[in-house]
Amino acid sequence: MPSSPERSAPRRLGPDQRRAQLLRVGLQLVTSEPLESVTAPAVAEAAGVSKGLVFHYFPTQRELQAAIARAAADQLIGLFARADPDLSQPERFASALDAFIDFVEQQPASYLAIARVSGADELLNAVFEDFRDAVVDLIALGFGRAAPTPRERLLLRGWVAMVEELILQWVATRAISRRELTEYLQASASELLSSAFGQEPPALRGG
Amino acid sequence: MPSSPERSAPRRLGPDQRRAQLLRVGLQLVTSEPLESVTAPAVAEAAGVSKGLVFHYFPTQRELQAAIARAAADQLIGLFARADPDLSQPERFASALDAFIDFVEQQPASYLAIARVSGADELLNAVFEDFRDAVVDLIALGFGRAAPTPRERLLLRGWVAMVEELILQWVATRAISRRELTEYLQASASELLSSAFGQEPPALRGG
Repeated sequence: MPSSPERSAPRRLGPDQRRAQLLRVGLQLVTSEPLESVTAPAVAEAAGVSKGLVFHYFPTQRELQAAIARAAADQLIGLFARADPDLSQPERFASALDAFIDFVEQQPASYLAIARVSGADELLNAVFEDFRDAVVDLIALGFGRAAPTPRERLLLRGWVAMVEELILQWVATRAISRRELTEYLQASASELLSSAFGQEPPALRGG
Repeated sequence: MPSSPERSAPRRLGPDQRRAQLLRVGLQLVTSEPLESVTAPAVAEAAGVSKGLVFHYFPTQRELQAAIARAAADQLIGLFARADPDLSQPERFASALDAFIDFVEQQPASYLAIARVSGADELLNAVFEDFRDAVVDLIALGFGRAAPTPRERLLLRGWVAMVEELILQWVATRAISRRELTEYLQASASELLSSAFGQEPPALRGG
């Protein structure tokens, strides 16, 4: 069994720290394995703790997996939101798109955990819905809409779904260059987001 | 227990007929229930046969559920492909879009079975991938591309993902009118498909 920093961590952790440790271990596993394989025994083994301890914090396997998917979603949302505040809106938009592509390229299994197992389970479905809603909120905020209308939310969710599929398919097929992918996504944002917000296409390609 | 035509069907069916009957029953159940609830016992009860008989045709529950999801996908693909050959291409395109919206509106659970449980299972993932690929083939064919390039496939899959999300969200929120939904999807097709095929926007609105 490979050693890991998590395994050599002190055994005496407070409940919050222990829960956070188990989630970190789960997040690490889901970077390379489908969420279905990230079971309580797998997390217990990788963390060097008993299965019972994992079940103490996550009473069912679904709760464990949903918490891991949510942690992955939070991580990605954090990357989107982390752009330098000194950047212009088009630059921040481009930076968030890049972060999205990087994340899916580097750990497609983590993204699939958020985006592709949702219908199977209410908890996982909530993770997926919350993730998409958070992305929509971020985009709307970038365009100066703190409270997007239902119509704006709907159209933005459609665009986000397209972005997701294009990145996943691009990682799988590399049918176009990364540069073409980015330009296509930015052009579609110009067209579709401007349609959603009922204004002239914002210049998303930078200043 | 409500009676149904399936229950009063003669018990002596050949293997192909019996398999088809079980799938029809499953398809009926999945019009209103999540795929996860459409278990072998549920299908057995609704079909008035033993659980063992269901397992004889579908050795695992996942195989049963994947077969039902595939039957739903085939049904939807059939609706897309069924447009009157005398219609113009824009009219056939509009007719397929309408069929898509109708299907999701009338039986969202069936569509979720195809589109939202895929990552959880290899068999279900194959149903989902095959469905999206078939839709891409149909669209490309409509535009005179019998063998779309990898680049065209990629861009079309992105558009299909957007259409799926917009219809699902529209059914859930009714944030815009059906007319606006249809017009938005057609306008996005004009923009994005013409980009995919590297030609002037085709007139998708008819005429």
